[in-house]
Order: sequence, then C-alpha cells, then structure tokens
Amino acid sequence: MRRELFTADHEAFRELVRTFIGKEIEPHYRRWEEQGAADRDVWRKAGEVGLLGMDVPAEYGGGGDPDYLHHVIVSEELGRAGVHAPALSLHNEIAGLYLRTLTTPEQRARWLPGFCTGELITAVAITEPDAGSDVARLSTRAVRRGDSYVISGRKTFITNAALAGLLLVAVRTGEGLGGLSVIAVESDRPGLARGQALDKIGMRAMDTLELFFDEVEVPAANLLGREGKGIAYLMRTLRRERMMIAVSALATAERVLEYTLEHCRTRQVFGLPVGGHQHNRFLLAELTTAVAVARSFTDRCVAEEAAGRLEAEEAAMAKWWNTELCQKVVDRCLQLHGGYGVVRDLPVARAFVDTRAQTIYGGTTEIMKELIGHALI
Amino acid sequence: MRRELFTADHEAFRELVRTFIGKEIEPHYRRWEEQGAADRDVWRKAGEVGLLGMDVPAEYGGGGDPDYLHHVIVSEELGRAGVHAPALSLHNEIAGLYLRTLTTPEQRARWLPGFCTGELITAVAITEPDAGSDVARLSTRAVRRGDSYVISGRKTFITNAALAGLLLVAVRTGEGLGGLSVIAVESDRPGLARGQALDKIGMRAMDTLELFFDEVEVPAANLLGREGKGIAYLMRTLRRERMMIAVSALATAERVLEYTLEHCRTRQVFGLPVGGHQHNRFLLAELTTAVAVARSFTDRCVAEEAAGRLEAEEAAMAKWWNTELCQKVVDRCLQLHGGYGVVRDLPVARAFVDTRAQTIYGGTTEIMKELIGHALI
Amino acid sequence: MRRELFTADHEAFRELVRTFIGKEIEPHYRRWEEQGAADRDVWRKAGEVGLLGMDVPAEYGGGGDPDYLHHVIVSEELGRAGVHAPALSLHNEIAGLYLRTLTTPEQRARWLPGFCTGELITAVAITEPDAGSDVARLSTRAVRRGDSYVISGRKTFITNAALAGLLLVAVRTGEGLGGLSVIAVESDRPGLARGQALDKIGMRAMDTLELFFDEVEVPAANLLGREGKGIAYLMRTLRRERMMIAVSALATAERVLEYTLEHCRTRQVFGLPVGGHQHNRFLLAELTTAVAVARSFTDRCVAEEAAGRLEAEEAAMAKWWNTELCQKVVDRCLQLHGGYGVVRDLPVARAFVDTRAQTIYGGTTEIMKELIGHALI
Amino acid sequence: MRRELFTADHEAFRELVRTFIGKEIEPHYRRWEEQGAADRDVWRKAGEVGLLGMDVPAEYGGGGDPDYLHHVIVSEELGRAGVHAPALSLHNEIAGLYLRTLTTPEQRARWLPGFCTGELITAVAITEPDAGSDVARLSTRAVRRGDSYVISGRKTFITNAALAGLLLVAVRTGEGLGGLSVIAVESDRPGLARGQALDKIGMRAMDTLELFFDEVEVPAANLLGREGKGIAYLMRTLRRERMMIAVSALATAERVLEYTLEHCRTRQVFGLPVGGHQHNRFLLAELTTAVAVARSFTDRCVAEEAAGRLEAEEAAMAKWWNTELCQKVVDRCLQLHGGYGVVRDLPVARAFVDTRAQTIYGGTTEIMKELIGHALI
Repeated sequence: MRRELFTADHEAFRELVRTFIGKEIEPHYRRWEEQGAADRDVWRKAGEVGLLGMDVPAEYGGGGDPDYLHHVIVSEELGRAGVHAPALSLHNEIAGLYLRTLTTPEQRARWLPGFCTGELITAVAITEPDAGSDVARLSTRAVRRGDSYVISGRKTFITNAALAGLLLVAVRTGEGLGGLSVIAVESDRPGLARGQALDKIGMRAMDTLELFFDEVEVPAANLLGREGKGIAYLMRTLRRERMMIAVSALATAERVLEYTLEHCRTRQVFGLPVGGHQHNRFLLAELTTAVAVARSFTDRCVAEEAAGRLEAEEAAMAKWWNTELCQKVVDRCLQLHGGYGVVRDLPVARAFVDTRAQTIYGGTTEIMKELIGHALI
Repeated sequence: MRRELFTADHEAFRELVRTFIGKEIEPHYRRWEEQGAADRDVWRKAGEVGLLGMDVPAEYGGGGDPDYLHHVIVSEELGRAGVHAPALSLHNEIAGLYLRTLTTPEQRARWLPGFCTGELITAVAITEPDAGSDVARLSTRAVRRGDSYVISGRKTFITNAALAGLLLVAVRTGEGLGGLSVIAVESDRPGLARGQALDKIGMRAMDTLELFFDEVEVPAANLLGREGKGIAYLMRTLRRERMMIAVSALATAERVLEYTLEHCRTRQVFGLPVGGHQHNRFLLAELTTAVAVARSFTDRCVAEEAAGRLEAEEAAMAKWWNTELCQKVVDRCLQLHGGYGVVRDLPVARAFVDTRAQTIYGGTTEIMKELIGHALI
Repeated sequence: MRRELFTADHEAFRELVRTFIGKEIEPHYRRWEEQGAADRDVWRKAGEVGLLGMDVPAEYGGGGDPDYLHHVIVSEELGRAGVHAPALSLHNEIAGLYLRTLTTPEQRARWLPGFCTGELITAVAITEPDAGSDVARLSTRAVRRGDSYVISGRKTFITNAALAGLLLVAVRTGEGLGGLSVIAVESDRPGLARGQALDKIGMRAMDTLELFFDEVEVPAANLLGREGKGIAYLMRTLRRERMMIAVSALATAERVLEYTLEHCRTRQVFGLPVGGHQHNRFLLAELTTAVAVARSFTDRCVAEEAAGRLEAEEAAMAKWWNTELCQKVVDRCLQLHGGYGVVRDLPVARAFVDTRAQTIYGGTTEIMKELIGHALI
Repeated sequence: MRRELFTADHEAFRELVRTFIGKEIEPHYRRWEEQGAADRDVWRKAGEVGLLGMDVPAEYGGGGDPDYLHHVIVSEELGRAGVHAPALSLHNEIAGLYLRTLTTPEQRARWLPGFCTGELITAVAITEPDAGSDVARLSTRAVRRGDSYVISGRKTFITNAALAGLLLVAVRTGEGLGGLSVIAVESDRPGLARGQALDKIGMRAMDTLELFFDEVEVPAANLLGREGKGIAYLMRTLRRERMMIAVSALATAERVLEYTLEHCRTRQVFGLPVGGHQHNRFLLAELTTAVAVARSFTDRCVAEEAAGRLEAEEAAMAKWWNTELCQKVVDRCLQLHGGYGVVRDLPVARAFVDTRAQTIYGGTTEIMKELIGHALI
C-alpha cells in the first residue's frame, strides 16, 4: 500500500537525507563504532546541508518550517540505514523542542545559531544511576546561590554526551515532582566531568556517557522556562520522543525485512531458496503482515501528531508496539540468515545488537503499558 | 482515534442496522440457537428496511448504491452484537457479487427481486467433504444433457443452506482448474437433499448443512457466466469474502474488549477492581493496543477496497491478522471473567465458541500465509 | 521415553479403569451431556469395581491402599477419554482427603461406607458468587445454636452438586481467615436448595450448580476438624487438587495430539497428508516436544507428591503449565482438523470447549503465578 | 526439586571444574575476548587437573572413566560461568568421540596422549560457506594419490581453529552422501591456511575461523574409520553434540535467572523492589516454571543418554527447546535490568550476545523440528 503522508517536497528532502547518510555517515561508520562516537565534523556538515534545526526560525539560521514530517523522514532514513550516530533526531526533535519553546529571546539568540550550524551539539540529561524511568527519584540538585545555580549530582546513559557543548539537565530545585527544573549547562563549566563511554552491546558509534556534576556553577539565566516546572517540561517531550523511537524502529524493521527477503529469494539450502521452504515462507508472510499493519497505525499516529491531536497513550502504543515488533523482526531475520547472522559483517547481526535497547530507552515497554492501562481503568 | 471512513449518511445507516438487530434479531437469538437457524421471517423484515441488496440496481428492488461501506457497516454491527444469523453479509456481499456481475438480464430479472425482498435467500456451495481449501479437488460434477445440466455430488459446511431458495454451486464441468463452473440451483429441484444441521460448537443460529445432489437437473440457463470459468469467479469473490470476515472479526474483538474493560473496572477481586491488578492492567493495555493497531490497518484496507485498489494479498493479511487477533482477545477476555467466563449467559462465553471457526472458513490462516508468502518469494 | 512411575499392578488397575470408562461411561456420555449430569447409577458401578475410595481403609469398604498413583491413573484415563462425569477424582481425591483425615471415627463410620459404595456422592462447596479465588471474602455463615450450626448463604460452581448426598461446605464461623470452618451438610436438609445447572460451554455432563442455604440446620457433629481451622484445611487440599488438574490436563493433551497425528498422517490436502506440509510438520514437532517436556516434569511432580515432598509452588507450576499447554495443544489440533474441527462429532471440537475452564478452576493461572512469584521475591 | 543424577563423586568433580573456571578462566576472560581466543596455556592447565579426556583410556593419559556425567558437569559449569573458551566440551565430547571410537591403535597412540595433556588441541571442520546444515552439499574434496590424500576446499565457522593442532575434516571422497569421509589433518600441513577470526557478535573469546585447503597432502593413515562412511560418523556425533548444547543452554538460563532474581529482590523502582511489581513477579514465576520444567526433561534425557537409550529425536527436542528457552530467559532478564541490561559490564548483556547463536549451531531449531516431524508423520 502506498503511504499517504508525503508530498514531492518531502520526497526531495528524503533524497537529501539519504545522500547525506550515504556520503557522510556510512563510509565512516565502522570507524566511529571503534572510537565510540561520530566525528564532530559530521555535525557541521549536517548543519550545512540543512539537517539541523529544520523547524527553528530562519532568523536563527534554521529551516523555518514547522512541518513535523521532516523529523519523521530523518528518523526513518537513519533507521533504514541502521546508523545511530550522529544522533540528529535527539538534537533536532528533543533538545530542539526545549530550546525552541522554553527559551527567552536572549537564550534563543545565544544557543540556536550554533544549534543549527552544528557548532553547538546538544544532549538531554535526565536519567540517574538510581532513577531511570522513575523521575520522582531524581537527586541531582541545583542550589540557587546569588545569580547562579550550583549543581551537584550524577547522570547516566546520556546520549551525545561526549560531543555536546550544551547539556539540558533535569535537576532538583525543591522537593517532590514540583521540585524539578531544567537548566542548560555548557559542557566546559568547571566541576563537570565526563565518564568513560558505556561499553554497550550495540549502538557503539553513539556516545553514551555518565556525567558527574561537582558544584558546577551556571548563571541563573541558563534556567529553561520556570523553576519547579521541570516535570511538565519533561512530560511534554516524552510523547514526541516516543513517536521518534516508534518511527525509527518501524523503519529499521522494514529495512531488515527487505534485505532478508532478498536473502531468502537467492540463498539456496536443501535444494530450494531459503524462502522456498514453507516454514520460512510462512514466517516471512507473518513478518510482512505485522510490518504492514504497524505501518498503517504508525502513519496514522504521525498524521495525528502533525495535526497536534496525538494523545500520550497513542504515542505509548506506537512506541512499545513498534519496538517490540522491530526486535522480533530482527531476531527472526537473523535466524533466517543461519550462521552468518551472528557475524558483524552482516547488517542483520548489527541490527540485533543495535536495536535491543529500544524497548528500554524513552520509557520501557512496561512503563508504556502502565501508562496505557491507567488510562483504561 | 477517530475513524475517518464514515459520513453522516453512513452513521444513519449504522443506526438503522443497530435498531434492526436490537429489535428483530436479539430478542429471538437464543431461540434460533436452539432451533439451529433463524426464522425465515427475519429475512423479509431485513428486506423491508433495506438491508438486502443495498448495491443491487433499483430496477430490481435494490438500494442502488454501490458504496462498499454499507456492507462494512452491516458486518461490523452483526459482529459487535455477536449474532451470526441471519447471514446477511454472505447473501449481500458474496452471493450478491455473483448475481449482480455474472448474470444475464434474464437471470437478474429472475432472481434479484426476491434477493432484495428476502423471499429468495441465497447460499454459496463450494466446499466438499474431501476438498476444503483445495478447490482443485472438487468433484461434484455437472454433466450437460440437452438444455440441462445434471448435477451429482456432495457439498458440506454450506451456510444458509436450510433456508436458501437459490444455491450457487461450484461444479466440475471438465477436468482440472479450467473445468470448474458455477451453476445456480433452485433448492426445490428433485434429487437435491439437505443433510442435518452440523452440530457446531458455536454459531448455532446459523444453519450450516451438507447438501446431496443426486442427478439434480437444472436448465442450462442457470449457468452463471461461462462454462469453465468457475475458478476465476471463485477467486474474484475471495478477496471480498476475506475482507468481510476481517471486518467482522475486528468489530467483534472491539466489542468484547469494551465490555471486558467495563467488567474489569467494576468487578472487585482481592480488594481491587480486576483491572487494578497490574498483570490485568498490562493485559488490557496490550489488547487495546493490538486492537487499535489492527483498526488502522483494517480501515486502510477498507478504503482501498472501496477504491478498487485492494490487492488479494492485502485482504489475506487483514483476514488472518484480525481473526487470529479476535480469537486471542476473546480468549484473554474470557480469562478475565474468571469462572463466569465459561457460562453461556455471558457474551464472552458465547464469543469464545462462536469465533473459533473464523481462522478456518474463508481460507484458513495457513492458506492466507501461503498466498502472501508466494507473492514474496 | 518410557514412563518410570508404574508397576505391573498399576497397569492392571489402569486396564480396569479403561474398561470401566469404555463400558459404563462412553456409551452414555452424549446422553449425560444432554441431561447435564451423569446417571446416579454409574457411581454405584464405580464403587462395585473398586474405583471409589481406593485409599480408604478396608474397614470402611475402601481399597485400603494409600498409593497416590491410583488417583493419578483415574485422572489420566478420564482425561484421555475426554469425559468429565462422573467426577470420580473430585470425590476420591478431594472430598476423600477431607473425609479420611479430618474426621472422627464416628464420622468415618457414618460417611465412608457410602462414599466407597457410591451410595453417598460428595461435593465440595467453597466458591461463592463474590468470592472465587479470594477465600477471604467468603460470606456463607454458620451460626452455632445449641448443638447445631445454622447455615445461610450461597455457593456457586459446585461440581457434583446435583447428585451429591454430602456437601463439604466452607463456612464462616468468625471473622477473617481464622474464622473459616468446614461443615458436612447432608443434601436433604431443609432450607437447602439447588439452583439450575449452569449452562457451561463445555463439560456439560458434569453437573455444576449453585446452592442456596437458607437457615439450614446441621448437627454440630457434622463439623470437620476444628472450628476456625478451615483455611488450613482448604489450603491442604489445594496442592493435591492442582496436581489432579495438572495430571488430567496433560493426559488430555497427549490423547488429543495422538489422534491429531493420526489425522495428519491420513487426511490428504493439496496432494500430501496434512502433516506432510512443512508448516504442519513443524507444528506437530513443537507440540510433541512440549508435551514430552511437560510429561517429564509432571511425572517428577507425581513422584514427589507420592513421596510427600511436593511443594505447593511446584504443584502450582504443574497446574498452570499443563493447563495452558493443554489449551494450546487442543486449539492447534482443532486448527489442523480444518472445518471439521468445530463440529461436535469430532473429539477435538469437544475438547476445545471442555478444556477451556482448566486454567480457571482450582486456582487461575494468574493465582498460580502470584503464588510462585511470592515465593521467589 | 533436588536433581537425582549426581553422586558425591560427581559433586567433587563439579567443584574441581568450578575452581578451575574461577582461577584459570575468569580472570583472563575479558582479555581473551579482546584477542579473540583463549591462551594456549589454559589448555595445558586443563589437562593437568584432569579436565581433558576424562573418558579416554588411562593408557593414553586419560581419566579412564566412561561416565557421561563428567561431560555434563563440564558443560554445565562453563554455561553457568558464561564462558565459551576454551571450548573444552567440543574437544572432549565431540572430537574425543571421533578419536576414541573411529581410530586404529596406531592413531590413538599418536593423538590421544597430546589430546589429554592439552598439547594437541582439536577442532572439527564440517561446515562450508555453501553448506551449513545441508551436508549433502559439502564440496571440500580429498583425492587419493598414492599413500596420501590431497585435500582442497574451504571450511567456515570452525571453533578452536586458531589453536587446534589436529583438525578432523569432513571431506568428499566420492559422490553423494556415501562419498563423505573424515580425515585428520595436522594444522601445520603445507597448503592449509587459517582465515581471520570471524567478527561475531558474541562468544568472542572462542576462536572461530575459516580454513582454506589448497592441495593439502596428508598420509592415508590419517583417515578416520573407513572411506565413504563419513555420513554415518557425522550423524553419530550429532545426538551427543545436541545434548551438549542443550545441557549448556539450560545451565546458562538457570544462572542468568538466578542473578536476575537477586537483582529483582534488591533493586528498587517506583518504591518497590523490581520483582515487587506484579508484572515482573509473574514474569519471574513464568521463567522459573519454564526452567524447572526444562530441567526435568533435560535430566531425564541425560539419564537416557548415559544409559545409551536416548533417541536422536529426543536429543533434537532437548536441543531446540533449551536453546530457545535460554534465549527467551536471557532476553526477558535483560529487560528486567533496564538500561544497564545492554552494558557489557553486566553478565546479562554478555549472555544476550553470547547465546544468540545457540539456536543455529549444532543444527538450527528448524532442522530439529524437521527431524522430529519426519519421525512423526
């Protein structure tokens, strides 16, 4: 079935993204996996071709087009290519949402131009060692001292943290859920230290670190929005982040299934193509159906999000459904490749390790079901 | 999410169907289950209010509106109500498709007026004891003798067979797949005998019989379309029949989930509502998600079918996905009702037995996967 | 793999049970399904051949052999035959456990002879409309008045209730879990009324009723064990009851799989036996493996129970695992039978409706997991 | 439930294996993962403490005890420790089976002493790039030339291939399945070249290579057994190899579940231990049950294998059931660890990548089902 979301302009943008990935990401990607991060340079190149801040007002150097579908296209193409660095979508969609909507004109002028050129890479720092999905337990503390906040604490699983120049940090400025705030911290502030890259099983080109804040002083003017409103700001971005992950996961699943189908048409075993054996043929039919069904729902959710109508529960549905599906598709496609399926030369092997965290980050599958379930009962 | 398929006119038609079901079907349904068939009378009433032949040209007494969505609405409302008799959709959508499109003006004049009033109930007789999904094995034979065909053989699992006045029978007029034809047989022809109602575990108000043809002579003018083209005619109706089943199955699943949610909100167990226990809450979230996802895909398929663009493989996907989902939803909802779940006073208990054949009739799940898989490899 | 539990004596007993089922149960079973209960007469015949009270001391007319395996054999053979009436195992294993171990010599002399001849059929009445798995909510009340208890309340889902002469009733004699007692109530006591048979989807030859107690007076000498110790007595029988269900469910699954394998070897479809198609062959391999794996575990649990070492959590494991497996095996085997799978002439169709309640009665799958989980955390 | 297989002597041997793993393997293991192979030295140490050739006759330096359970214990302890190098079980159980039973006294005298001291590490080379599970397609050819065989071809996925001094190579000496033979090839023969280590997603300390044979000449005295009997020899070892994998997989699953249970008891989230949330508690109950059930079946299969009675189909059942279960247990346990689950510092993250190939090597799950299914139909 033809997708109904996209215009010719969108398709042109998609072509741009594909070209960028093919030229500026894929040739370097294995090296980035070795070094545990993308080159800083690729961010500037992304800025040059217009892949940063597509929805940032033109006065700050952005694309000036609020159309949500550009974000969708970037996520889909990165997902299809199986590359997780540079984390453009996190920068554009999540950090960008904070910086476009919670900032003063002074802050926007300070940060958005670099955000759009790629000079200023961003990261969002929420999770702590003892507080993953459970933000009520966040304990990194920002104490007001004159015109500054002094921040102490520890953050973990922070994507982009090695390269980021600006960290959007969830901090505790008071007690309870009403005591959370978000402060932008320049990464060269004294007292801020980066941990070693986490030795993850996959997504190894994406830098994911711990951050240590030891009395890090930042001007009060770095506060985003209002003090004590952090929980509302965090929640606002979650719906979008979950759609971002859902969109990426489904695009990944579709691509993995495509090349596995090709493999099953050509590779011979026991006198037939792999896909000529009925068990495999049924499996491919099941996966193809599951992906087609998820595609309809996802495109519908995308249209609703673009129209500003998507509910939090619907984003949660898309998130858990697509990420669980993606893992299943990848696992079954790996099996269809036989022994080669676990050798990293094959994309399916890397998809297997790269996609495992999808059902965990951005809110685990369990958190999604809790959220959906509470709305039902 | 709001469904996007329906206009206000459609909603008015839906209201008509609901009223009919509530007034003319539900009050009699338990009795029909006992007697193994609906009353003949309900067919006439359906004709009177315009629920027969909605897409038959007005000159024959039909509704004259080719809009596919009327069929969808009838299937959905019967599915929601959990009633399987009278088998309006089979008459309207499947038999109707043969009678509208494969007939001569003389045949249309002969059959369609009764078809629309409910005087002439129809059935489609394809399956044989030794040939279910495998039409190449059909052996009921029609031999041309002068201006007649003489038919001998045996059909089984024929819905509407007790009440039908006109049977559309797949017969063998030659060898191989090119030797199949479809002949309309009036049910009072000498040599035609009905077997006893099959003692099915569910759908007991829907009459399903064996038919025995012992040298049944019918005029050659009862041939539908051309001799030897039967396989093409059978295949043409299958896409539609599978959508009909898919539409019904999803509507059933939605309705069962609705009242189970209500049960889970109100029934207390171990000091909480049933749905207040996390395991159940997660299960309800899973089922709600699965149904929402299937809804997007199904409505998309319906729109494609209405536009004449739906592929056979897509109908097959909707068929197996929705019927398997429906059985899963019903099974899990039954479990959520505890001991009462197996008592026939509860709709969920009857849904359990009534829906089990969905993954078998109209082409088994396995046949659907074979069909989809062959298009992939 | 050969089972290791049974001696030649056991096999002789098994032969006796099979003969009894073939001669005294199967020929009448469809009629019993119609009438909603077995004939009273079959209980006396069971007593005559030694199938009642095998472990009751010989002085009361019992078999005098405490060997647990006799109970296992009866459950297995009833399960294999797909018959659920008369409910011999419930009488022998569950009611018998109360009557053998919680009774005074006077009570044993009063009840056990009839228990062994089949004159005195027993039932155990625990569940109430508002208290299924949750015994803390039981509200049927027994008030001491002189030398009597006066019982008022309502019980439901009581097996054997139509024929039983002696009901072992869980009653509330005080508050809380320490306020439960078990009292034997002769079924002809004034004030005791039977409801209509529940219209269950399956197990229709097994009489399952509601019971209404309206100031039913019974002598205090009918108290089993000590007042207020009911919860301990109920718990004691649950381990055994769950094993009984687990044993029956696995035997049922094995038998259904056996005849489905035979069907898959002989029935032809698309030019091959049903089982010759790879998808079906794999499915049969999966079910055969699952049943073999469950067999090892079950026989190990049986050996532990026979040795008095089985833990409550292990019985809970066997219960949920085997009943869920049985339902899956039956469902898949039904599918392998195609359209005939839903026609009640086939054992697989009846197994489908007869086995659905297994994951509910005796403690739902959810209760089993709760119990196992609490022992882990 | 207590396992019934082991005596005090076995437990002492188990203690020896555990000590060896803790002292000689675990401290080096991360380094071995980096270098892609174990140190050669650990093989000699294994030989010194009696972990090589336990069932090789004492005259050749072996343990002289044919007891199968020693092999089981080694596999279990390596599995529990999550270490895949050195591949002791492959050497002892599989290569050992060839060398003990297919050899002449001269061959035994030549190879077994080194086999037992660890001087002569072995590998078995069957799989080829175009022939994985399908041995009929093997094309590495050995041509008889005088008193030699000259071997040309290519093998892949060969475990131990970097360190092995003796390769047992499946070669084609004629056409068809009757044209296969097994020849022992010393790894320093001219014309034999090793490829680079395969860049596997897991089991990275276990050296897995390609081997290239370019006119490699070996004396005819290196033929194992008889020419043309290779297929029988390959099949003979498969039952044992599948049990070896089944035993290892279940031990791995048990261990991963153990430490995940510990994690779920101690780690707090949303105010409760992870395992205190009902969904997780149910999941842990399910996994614990599944592992207990598999344990009964596996121990029964081990006992049958020890008694020489295990059927090929039973080993196939244990193989696919346990490896699929292991992957499921590991995947679910990873999810229960949240974000840390994908960081390689945690054993569960490494188990996730290390166990993925289990359902592929030694015969895929699909091959196992084919084998079981063919015996049924």
